[in-house]
Amino acid sequence: MAEPTEIKGVKGFKFASRAAGIKRSGKPDLTLIYSEVPARCAGVFTTNKVIAAPLVVSQPRVRSGLCQAVLVNSGNANACTGEQGLQDALRCSALTAQALGISEELVAVSSTGVIGAPLPMEKFERHLAGLATELAPNGALQSAEAIMTTDAFVKISGCRVDTPGYTLLGIAKGAGMIHPNMATMLGFVLTDALVEPALLEEALRSGVDKSFNSITVDRDTSTNDMVLLLANGQAGNAEITRGSEAGKVFTAQLQAVLLDLAKMIVRDGEGATKLVQIHVQGARDAADARKAAYSVATSSLVKTAFFGEDANWGRIIAAVGYSGADVDPNKVEIRFGEVPVVQAGISTGKDLEEQATAVLKTPEFTVTIDLHLGAGEADYYTSDLTYDYVRINGSYRS
Amino acid sequence: MAEPTEIKGVKGFKFASRAAGIKRSGKPDLTLIYSEVPARCAGVFTTNKVIAAPLVVSQPRVRSGLCQAVLVNSGNANACTGEQGLQDALRCSALTAQALGISEELVAVSSTGVIGAPLPMEKFERHLAGLATELAPNGALQSAEAIMTTDAFVKISGCRVDTPGYTLLGIAKGAGMIHPNMATMLGFVLTDALVEPALLEEALRSGVDKSFNSITVDRDTSTNDMVLLLANGQAGNAEITRGSEAGKVFTAQLQAVLLDLAKMIVRDGEGATKLVQIHVQGARDAADARKAAYSVATSSLVKTAFFGEDANWGRIIAAVGYSGADVDPNKVEIRFGEVPVVQAGISTGKDLEEQATAVLKTPEFTVTIDLHLGAGEADYYTSDLTYDYVRINGSYRS
Repeated sequence: MAEPTEIKGVKGFKFASRAAGIKRSGKPDLTLIYSEVPARCAGVFTTNKVIAAPLVVSQPRVRSGLCQAVLVNSGNANACTGEQGLQDALRCSALTAQALGISEELVAVSSTGVIGAPLPMEKFERHLAGLATELAPNGALQSAEAIMTTDAFVKISGCRVDTPGYTLLGIAKGAGMIHPNMATMLGFVLTDALVEPALLEEALRSGVDKSFNSITVDRDTSTNDMVLLLANGQAGNAEITRGSEAGKVFTAQLQAVLLDLAKMIVRDGEGATKLVQIHVQGARDAADARKAAYSVATSSLVKTAFFGEDANWGRIIAAVGYSGADVDPNKVEIRFGEVPVVQAGISTGKDLEEQATAVLKTPEFTVTIDLHLGAGEADYYTSDLTYDYVRINGSYRS
Repeated sequence: MAEPTEIKGVKGFKFASRAAGIKRSGKPDLTLIYSEVPARCAGVFTTNKVIAAPLVVSQPRVRSGLCQAVLVNSGNANACTGEQGLQDALRCSALTAQALGISEELVAVSSTGVIGAPLPMEKFERHLAGLATELAPNGALQSAEAIMTTDAFVKISGCRVDTPGYTLLGIAKGAGMIHPNMATMLGFVLTDALVEPALLEEALRSGVDKSFNSITVDRDTSTNDMVLLLANGQAGNAEITRGSEAGKVFTAQLQAVLLDLAKMIVRDGEGATKLVQIHVQGARDAADARKAAYSVATSSLVKTAFFGEDANWGRIIAAVGYSGADVDPNKVEIRFGEVPVVQAGISTGKDLEEQATAVLKTPEFTVTIDLHLGAGEADYYTSDLTYDYVRINGSYRS
């Protein structure tokens, strides 16, 4: 994976960011991502039935397949804001289209922050025209900063594919779902590759399933979650199509960028000190593997044991047991890193458990659960549950 | 509901408890509950697919409908102990039957405590004969003590029904699922009423659904959970049958005892400082109401907000949104106590939110979520997620 500094920009994309005063902190809170030509696009949106206004506006536009500009604000989620919220989201997109001189249908809007408060429209009215004049090709890092809420660090990842020559660049935000009342996980991936629309759709969906949809800080999905992929075709490559070798490379590279961003979100999980990969194998099928991995990755008892660096396999086996996946308790095998602590459903003894404890003391490790029933596999990435999680989420909104 | 001290015993039932050294602490850890005559019985058992050995032994016996003795130990769950664990559970029941001079088929065994360690059989061999000689009618409180693991207080509840004259007495243990590696929620309810077997079964199942199955400290269900109901008919009443007025009274009283015990478990939730009733109404149907209530009651973000005494309705509405229940975001109403904070999906303003914050400062309150879609209702009881939860569950097993 390329280092953030290595990828400075993506051909044909420009960025502009400002501190518009939507956040009380005075930090950057408004960013505009613009493609010189309309880009093909695909999107994945929250499955929450309570959907924030910007998603109501953006979702059908993204589904239509073309997008030229994305306006994102932090500090206010424009969620649970009723009819006024919808009008505000539409006004944001109108202001953006006007400032850029493009069709409103080519604008996506996205918001993250406080739920239930009206969007401070005067900030948008004041800043949007100016923002459009500041667009520059090297502003991705500033965009990544401007979408942060409780994030402790900027999340940016990218890579360069030499044959055919194109670039992928992604930014994301997220650290737990809703800090006091900050919401949302957002991801925006830009590429200058020319890609068949069906491949864009398919690659994004499978990539998100194995990254953003396979992480959990808590189990909550927000009202504002969205991941967009824009491909503007400015690299000049022959169109990358589904089923081709180049298509497989594109899919794999996109997934790598998404997973890199997703892991950053787990590492930045509110109060988290550990990144743990839960790898389930030997499940009856892939769906069972996913159920089991999800159940373990979301168990508060498992997550506090990680925090306590306690090789508590009893909690893991119990979480597998109530996951709904097929389990034969007498076949279960559990490893912390490479150290087996359970074989055929019973403990391998104190010595190995002590070795496993050493694995738990590292900041990043894998727990493998082999059900020995079939070929189903799945991975989930989770964090530990810490005092700081309670502190951050238990303190008053401010 | 009767105070614990009011109900001293149940006709025909005797109790004996000892500190047998299964717990390192030297506290009571073994108890025997005995009925002078075989009692009709019903049971509800864990749905976890990893089932501890004592349940493997007891479940078919309880299903056969008669039980005369229940042996319970704390300090060791006899779970994930393989074939040896099964042999040990059978040996416990054989020792009990022998000491009491009854058929082994009339003995149920139950264990709670450390997962994955072999049962220290020498303690059972040493103490069971003596335990049987110490049976006395007034030992229910000591039995309730002997089944405790991480419980901070004894859980006992009962009531006297005057017409026809009979008594219900229940004891329970549980405080979160698995403390470091202590497992399990257990409940034992005894009555001297003569009750039709089908009613026992039905009343226990519905009572458990609305009590033990409607509480959550964390979402985890253990390998050892069980609730038993024994009715020995020694009160001399005419048989209470399904559908009769007396049957309704019995069902209601049983449910009250179970709910009382279940609420004690939530209050004793590891590190909990608040007991919160999540009441969902106006759902499309009862199943939807239950989904929504469960989702809110188990959200770590909602539970930390309760700890922070933050009227964070954004988290609640988000949890309803991803619950799978039908939701029209523009109809949702949320009240903390009697204070509406959300109406028609949007905030009712700062003043009411401040009033709601006052409700959150109390140790026990109700959050009502009205979806305004139908007649479905459900209740869940939950606790807050606190620093102490992390401390208790994050510290090493000892």
